[in-house]
Amino acid sequence: MNYPTGIKKKPTQIINYSNRGMTLEDDINQTNSYYRDNDIAYIYKKPTPIKVTKVSFNNRNATIKEAFYEKPSTTDYNGIYKSYYIDFEAKETKNKTSFPLANIHKHQLTHLKNIIRHGGIGFIIVRFTLLNETYLLRTEDLFSFTEKNKRKSIPLTFFKEKGYQIKENYRPRLNYLKIIDIFLEVDKNVKKEKNK
Amino acid sequence: MNYPTGIKKKPTQIINYSNRGMTLEDDINQTNSYYRDNDIAYIYKKPTPIKVTKVSFNNRNATIKEAFYEKPSTTDYNGIYKSYYIDFEAKETKNKTSFPLANIHKHQLTHLKNIIRHGGIGFIIVRFTLLNETYLLRTEDLFSFTEKNKRKSIPLTFFKEKGYQIKENYRPRLNYLKIIDIFLEVDKNVKKEKNK
Repeated sequence: MNYPTGIKKKPTQIINYSNRGMTLEDDINQTNSYYRDNDIAYIYKKPTPIKVTKVSFNNRNATIKEAFYEKPSTTDYNGIYKSYYIDFEAKETKNKTSFPLANIHKHQLTHLKNIIRHGGIGFIIVRFTLLNETYLLRTEDLFSFTEKNKRKSIPLTFFKEKGYQIKENYRPRLNYLKIIDIFLEVDKNVKKEKNK
Repeated sequence: MNYPTGIKKKPTQIINYSNRGMTLEDDINQTNSYYRDNDIAYIYKKPTPIKVTKVSFNNRNATIKEAFYEKPSTTDYNGIYKSYYIDFEAKETKNKTSFPLANIHKHQLTHLKNIIRHGGIGFIIVRFTLLNETYLLRTEDLFSFTEKNKRKSIPLTFFKEKGYQIKENYRPRLNYLKIIDIFLEVDKNVKKEKNK
């Protein structure tokens, strides 16, 4: 499994416009802070699940002496935007031509599918780090790929065709909710068509 | 701060109808599993936030050697039900006549307020363990109390008047979504009245 990025490097507090050294997680966390500070959306990264096996108590202060990383049972990010339930997973890949699906656990995919069946908005954000390109792919399109293809990775061309590139900015770093606004508009028009 | 209940005792896997030894957290987790297994709602407990300070690697396996509990910045539970964003905090108290508000962090209260302003459904579930009574109180009613009263605890009588008691059952243990259905019905009627 992948260890959370926070362990090996300290989260940088310095604003680095050039994105050098900023991970996708840093960018999303900064973006979510911006959304919260401006009362736009309340979306948080869930804490990494850790199984604690030994704790020592010293004057009522607990120190964890042994613990292990667990596989997350859901996606990393969720929250609320315009009264919609938002749920997504974010991943980086060093691959230049495709995103290996092994990066996302099977139960995370099932989770994303459950969310959209119940009326939430689900997606993945994938950064091709060596190309410095970041894409948002809606759960619906992700599954339209996995159901038709037996390939174990999604080609970059599929992201270019069905996904939306998120360009980096100053503030917020990755304005992914702009793309959610497009989805909401599309969904509204689909509903209108159905009611005709 | 309160340590997560899981540390001192192992989560019981034995179904105990009498509720002896079942914490509120156990009951809610079991209820949420039931909701998921029956495709009713997807509501999860967020992992406890832990700050990892020392990790040792042994053949690519990571063991956490030192870590500390952190204060949660949001509530413990969130998810989706009938396309609504659901967000709540659950607390037990040994007090027999009132629920001390110190049990909920200030930023958790702010979080619950943000959620309802953005169209989500927020509430707290409080169990008076010595009375074996569990109540659900909507964020709106929680704030109608805290804004009018300078008291540092909510009396049980307020829960009885404005809250909803959740009776324990076999499966699910605590069917709190039944109360959410009442809220949705009330909100629909309020909207209808407004549009008249």
